[in-house]
Amino acid sequence: MKKVVLAYSGGLDTTFCALHLSKDLGYEVHAVLINTGGFSQEELQEIEQRAKGLGIASFVILDVTKTYYEEVIKFLIFGNVLKNQTYPLSVSAERILQAKTLADYVKKIGAKSVAHGSTGAGNDQVRFDMIFQTIIPDIEIITPIRDLKLSREEEINYLKKHGVSMNFEKAAYSINKGIWGTSVGGKETLTSNQTLPEHAWPTQVSKTEGEELNIDFEKGEIKAVNGVAYKNPVEAIKKIQEIAAPFGIGRDVHVGDTIIGIKGRVGFEAAAPLIIIKAHQLLEKHCLTKWQTFWKNQLSEFYGNHLHEGHYLDPVMRNLEAFLESTQEFVTGKVKVLLHPYRFQLVGIESKHDLMASKFGSYGEMNKGYTAEDVKGFTRILGNQTAIFHQVNYHEEN
Amino acid sequence: MKKVVLAYSGGLDTTFCALHLSKDLGYEVHAVLINTGGFSQEELQEIEQRAKGLGIASFVILDVTKTYYEEVIKFLIFGNVLKNQTYPLSVSAERILQAKTLADYVKKIGAKSVAHGSTGAGNDQVRFDMIFQTIIPDIEIITPIRDLKLSREEEINYLKKHGVSMNFEKAAYSINKGIWGTSVGGKETLTSNQTLPEHAWPTQVSKTEGEELNIDFEKGEIKAVNGVAYKNPVEAIKKIQEIAAPFGIGRDVHVGDTIIGIKGRVGFEAAAPLIIIKAHQLLEKHCLTKWQTFWKNQLSEFYGNHLHEGHYLDPVMRNLEAFLESTQEFVTGKVKVLLHPYRFQLVGIESKHDLMASKFGSYGEMNKGYTAEDVKGFTRILGNQTAIFHQVNYHEEN
Amino acid sequence: MKKVVLAYSGGLDTTFCALHLSKDLGYEVHAVLINTGGFSQEELQEIEQRAKGLGIASFVILDVTKTYYEEVIKFLIFGNVLKNQTYPLSVSAERILQAKTLADYVKKIGAKSVAHGSTGAGNDQVRFDMIFQTIIPDIEIITPIRDLKLSREEEINYLKKHGVSMNFEKAAYSINKGIWGTSVGGKETLTSNQTLPEHAWPTQVSKTEGEELNIDFEKGEIKAVNGVAYKNPVEAIKKIQEIAAPFGIGRDVHVGDTIIGIKGRVGFEAAAPLIIIKAHQLLEKHCLTKWQTFWKNQLSEFYGNHLHEGHYLDPVMRNLEAFLESTQEFVTGKVKVLLHPYRFQLVGIESKHDLMASKFGSYGEMNKGYTAEDVKGFTRILGNQTAIFHQVNYHEEN
Amino acid sequence: MKKVVLAYSGGLDTTFCALHLSKDLGYEVHAVLINTGGFSQEELQEIEQRAKGLGIASFVILDVTKTYYEEVIKFLIFGNVLKNQTYPLSVSAERILQAKTLADYVKKIGAKSVAHGSTGAGNDQVRFDMIFQTIIPDIEIITPIRDLKLSREEEINYLKKHGVSMNFEKAAYSINKGIWGTSVGGKETLTSNQTLPEHAWPTQVSKTEGEELNIDFEKGEIKAVNGVAYKNPVEAIKKIQEIAAPFGIGRDVHVGDTIIGIKGRVGFEAAAPLIIIKAHQLLEKHCLTKWQTFWKNQLSEFYGNHLHEGHYLDPVMRNLEAFLESTQEFVTGKVKVLLHPYRFQLVGIESKHDLMASKFGSYGEMNKGYTAEDVKGFTRILGNQTAIFHQVNYHEEN
Repeated sequence: MKKVVLAYSGGLDTTFCALHLSKDLGYEVHAVLINTGGFSQEELQEIEQRAKGLGIASFVILDVTKTYYEEVIKFLIFGNVLKNQTYPLSVSAERILQAKTLADYVKKIGAKSVAHGSTGAGNDQVRFDMIFQTIIPDIEIITPIRDLKLSREEEINYLKKHGVSMNFEKAAYSINKGIWGTSVGGKETLTSNQTLPEHAWPTQVSKTEGEELNIDFEKGEIKAVNGVAYKNPVEAIKKIQEIAAPFGIGRDVHVGDTIIGIKGRVGFEAAAPLIIIKAHQLLEKHCLTKWQTFWKNQLSEFYGNHLHEGHYLDPVMRNLEAFLESTQEFVTGKVKVLLHPYRFQLVGIESKHDLMASKFGSYGEMNKGYTAEDVKGFTRILGNQTAIFHQVNYHEEN
Repeated sequence: MKKVVLAYSGGLDTTFCALHLSKDLGYEVHAVLINTGGFSQEELQEIEQRAKGLGIASFVILDVTKTYYEEVIKFLIFGNVLKNQTYPLSVSAERILQAKTLADYVKKIGAKSVAHGSTGAGNDQVRFDMIFQTIIPDIEIITPIRDLKLSREEEINYLKKHGVSMNFEKAAYSINKGIWGTSVGGKETLTSNQTLPEHAWPTQVSKTEGEELNIDFEKGEIKAVNGVAYKNPVEAIKKIQEIAAPFGIGRDVHVGDTIIGIKGRVGFEAAAPLIIIKAHQLLEKHCLTKWQTFWKNQLSEFYGNHLHEGHYLDPVMRNLEAFLESTQEFVTGKVKVLLHPYRFQLVGIESKHDLMASKFGSYGEMNKGYTAEDVKGFTRILGNQTAIFHQVNYHEEN
Repeated sequence: MKKVVLAYSGGLDTTFCALHLSKDLGYEVHAVLINTGGFSQEELQEIEQRAKGLGIASFVILDVTKTYYEEVIKFLIFGNVLKNQTYPLSVSAERILQAKTLADYVKKIGAKSVAHGSTGAGNDQVRFDMIFQTIIPDIEIITPIRDLKLSREEEINYLKKHGVSMNFEKAAYSINKGIWGTSVGGKETLTSNQTLPEHAWPTQVSKTEGEELNIDFEKGEIKAVNGVAYKNPVEAIKKIQEIAAPFGIGRDVHVGDTIIGIKGRVGFEAAAPLIIIKAHQLLEKHCLTKWQTFWKNQLSEFYGNHLHEGHYLDPVMRNLEAFLESTQEFVTGKVKVLLHPYRFQLVGIESKHDLMASKFGSYGEMNKGYTAEDVKGFTRILGNQTAIFHQVNYHEEN
Repeated sequence: MKKVVLAYSGGLDTTFCALHLSKDLGYEVHAVLINTGGFSQEELQEIEQRAKGLGIASFVILDVTKTYYEEVIKFLIFGNVLKNQTYPLSVSAERILQAKTLADYVKKIGAKSVAHGSTGAGNDQVRFDMIFQTIIPDIEIITPIRDLKLSREEEINYLKKHGVSMNFEKAAYSINKGIWGTSVGGKETLTSNQTLPEHAWPTQVSKTEGEELNIDFEKGEIKAVNGVAYKNPVEAIKKIQEIAAPFGIGRDVHVGDTIIGIKGRVGFEAAAPLIIIKAHQLLEKHCLTKWQTFWKNQLSEFYGNHLHEGHYLDPVMRNLEAFLESTQEFVTGKVKVLLHPYRFQLVGIESKHDLMASKFGSYGEMNKGYTAEDVKGFTRILGNQTAIFHQVNYHEEN
């Protein structure tokens, strides 16, 4: 019997896949749920329970949240990556890690096939397939939803026919939850001119009083939240999310270019990622030189796009990560943030690496370490080429 | 008698300069107030009144707001320029135009000297001097405040001694107002860890009910606000400012690299610039291709930095403007915004140039114009090089 | 009878296509030879003669060399585009123009199909298909060689069977000739460690005495060669090629990334393109500012890559062209070149836009327009941030 | 008696400085000659001999060639750095190392002053001063030549008056020699339209027969020359120089932007640097992915410019070096080069990391690992956005 490893999330599509692969195609199905920080223990138990009723050979839960942080999220923070200046790549980033983990599991159990539930109109199909063809090039890739082009109703009928019971009420919004944010798709995100209604957001606003939040970074990584140290940055991120999410912070709608060339739009809720990135970026504004900032911005945009498009395994990504990691040497200090309903405000930073240290002069107030004559000389030379250019090309024509 | 053209704003520093140049140095002082949209008629009359009491030879007000828009602001919108992803360059941008206008006035009246009130610790001294040495290279530049290193108190005493009456109450916050935003400096902005208090913001929050705002763009320029057409984009910007400012929108603190190498921090209030840039950018997300967006981002960052640092006359700026202008051909459509106290929300856009038009497929839902097999082939080739790289460098080693 | 427009070059592959489309598939074949400057009158007559014996409905020669220059080559010169710092994109560039011309012809005669002779392992298939699906999206694309996977021998047998006579001697090297260079593929270019033998180069070296060549540029375009003015830059390019080719100049082997992910290697001979680009670049070194040069280099690399990969119709290319054109405003002057066997040497330039004009100072010799004190002040401020960075992060730790 | 450390090269300017500092200014002069690979033992002995007659307190020779390689040259090779696509930064690069070494020596002997012989019209003054103000910010910098603005004749008279004997024949060409190339300045390089005459080049052409050269790289560094292994890359570079220099290879004239805004022009002779960089780059073309090459090119240009302008100590340089080092992981293999008089030819490479390995398909010949249908699907999706763009913006208007 042919073994297939199935990426299983417990949703409609992957439940269909499990049954279809096992019943119709005769595979020995090994379902793998990869947790990137978005499932609670209750949810996991419920999913496991249901999975066992699908005639599959095995079901396993792999928690890769820590690896996800180490191999992906860390660099998204270092790079302050927000795709199109908006989206923290909540889904894009975790698909990479899920695919890598699946590929390793395929090798581990010696399967010859791997299956995922992606449709034919999204980014995920490309992300999964590209990772697979690179790490496990000889393994067959099966994508029942994409190949059969089934409608949601057909999937439901199929499952009912086979006696599978789950909540078939078509949820109005499709939700994907991980530690780096929750995406929300629905009928509004299929238009260009509507935004998600209040009730569609997974976390409802329950905090209305302003609240202070302090984050300590060390070499670009979170070390403490409100003065409490965390050895595991994953726990720190969860803590920030717990504090900030009830404010409705980090909600937005991302519009951008999909890998397959069409424009895509998706809502997301990502309180912790947004706050962390903006806080980290503020600290960097104080600690990095001008050209470090310039090149970080230029490279991070590409890094985010390339990751989004599934190219995580292109070796250029390792090279860019080496650059990003190198920039974090002195990104150490405390950032104070004020949380309000629907928004947050960066108050300021404290760092022994702060280049704004007043002993070198205060902007607009007092020059130290240089004189007015220095600045005049500086300006004369700094503008020398442009002055020559104008002298040669404009003044002489008169 | 030697003519000097003085950049005059009516504040303490330039009032001192007027008197000093005329009384102590014996210049024939021609004071020029350059309005970039930040002065009301009342303010202008008051300033003119006071100027006349300073013994100067002439006083003239030049309103360059329209030129400012055409030569600078337009491109800041095209490029969605926010320095360090925050600051709309409110002050940096207008200094350029002021210096250019002054230089032209110097030539017009045949003066041999030009004076400005910059201190020795800020960006403005470099911006003014660089423009002058390029456009009017043979003209003497006089900077009394920078050269005499006078304290505020000394300036006040000097003015009092000469019988000048103005409000010498040392304002706690120094304010610079123009059509592209108001900057606010004070004791908090000299620190790294404090933000401006509520009362320091020039516009106090007076609107608390949410309000809808619609902006129509045509080839990247504003054509209508809430359905009312504007022939002059300057008037449209003022209208948006009038609507949005009472919400306290667009307040933030900018931290960044000054031209002279120290870090600088300044508060700003820029409701219209922030809303316009974000609305324009959203429209672009729907109308531009992936690589147009990528290169616009890369180049706009440099454009903003180079402008900030006073290099407006470097011909590369004209080249980048040609690029930016070219990208705006189809950036036409309507953007809907919701205004709330302290924040705004982009609802969506309508445009006949929207590349998200659903007939080409809906992201994640339905592919049109291509098949599942197309995507599989696409993915196989797209990931081909990375797959070969791994095959050659990792798989073979086993 | 269904009309098909066939891209016809007179070689084995397209001759096969003509016959196959007409005889086997029953199409009304309209063969189009698109001349981009690589065919002599004799060659064209010979090809026309043979074409008429293939049972096709019509044969037409379209000379697009001038358009090719205006829409593509001009920008390759403005950008000094050499892919991987080596290859002037001889073939890549002309495929674009050929595909565009074919698409227009398809529309003109109302055909419903278009055919080209590309194989399944090269770049050309992608270039042709992408242009077609953009300009004529509803037109069927037929690629017999790619689809039938025929070997060269099978093609020859097929043609012989149908009584077609042409020189079937398998040429050891496949040659593609156009005004922007001639590519040469052969058994050596399929390896990584061999170069083409002397006899494989289309132009044999016949000049051994050094020769001087003078090129006049005006706004980046060639206006005169050795003092003789040319209204049509195409004729100027041909003249330079005529003078320089017998020296064996411009021979090299390009190795790079194909669109389909594998590495490709091809020899080329491009005397005029290499000399023109290097001469143009030298003139720019004298006439452009530092940042114009920087951004031209950054953008031109992408422009060349994107063109190479068939993305000529991406609107970002028009935006980049607007940038490039804008940079050429003062790229006017004369460049002197010395031609030697296998190499050339740039002697120098003369231009009224030369920023090296000695009245502004001579490098290393004499400063004019600034003093030693100016440079000291300049240096103090220029290095201010790095000095502060070291003070904060290294000196204090002691 | 105040100690001063003098950067001493044995030439006219620094000989003047030694005497002037000691005799006129009363300093205790500690002369340091920093050898970056450009001095022979004989030259060093001669210089030491002369130095001792100048009344200085001490003279020391510091050979930093190995450090120079490790801290600078290595990265210039990794980045294939040729400024303006021409100049290997022969002088720019070594000034950095010299300044750093001097600063360390100043700290070591507890001097309070440092002196160098730079003029006021060149790049070196900025490079030296910036390094000093960063590493030894409290140390006085003395630049007699720049400050006194002495002519060459005045310097000579001064030395003669003090009984110093050296070859005062004004050398027609000023030469600077180091392991990464020799620069040559003369009356021709002060013009825009003349090149150096044959006799001005330090190495005269003595080899006329073609010769094969094989270089082995390991992770981007040279490991063997013509099959002979070198543990010290410095020795390998010297070997290549010894073999190639007599061919007159690597001669050219660099024109570019000086730090102080004027254009500068200088001849150089750098056989080994040119061959090594081009050989290394060819190997990379076979071993790196497309985006590794793209970003290496973009970043290396900035790295080279920033180094040239004296910003070696900006921490962004360390970040870029981390990137560059990371890209070299698989840049291992052999490159074969043919040397001819005045030129060289890259024959090809052999590497187990070669991505052109034919089993993945041969360009233009045979596709392996993918089908014609795959490429069609690839092309359809790859061109999807541009096709949609044209559909929306052009086709619909009809």
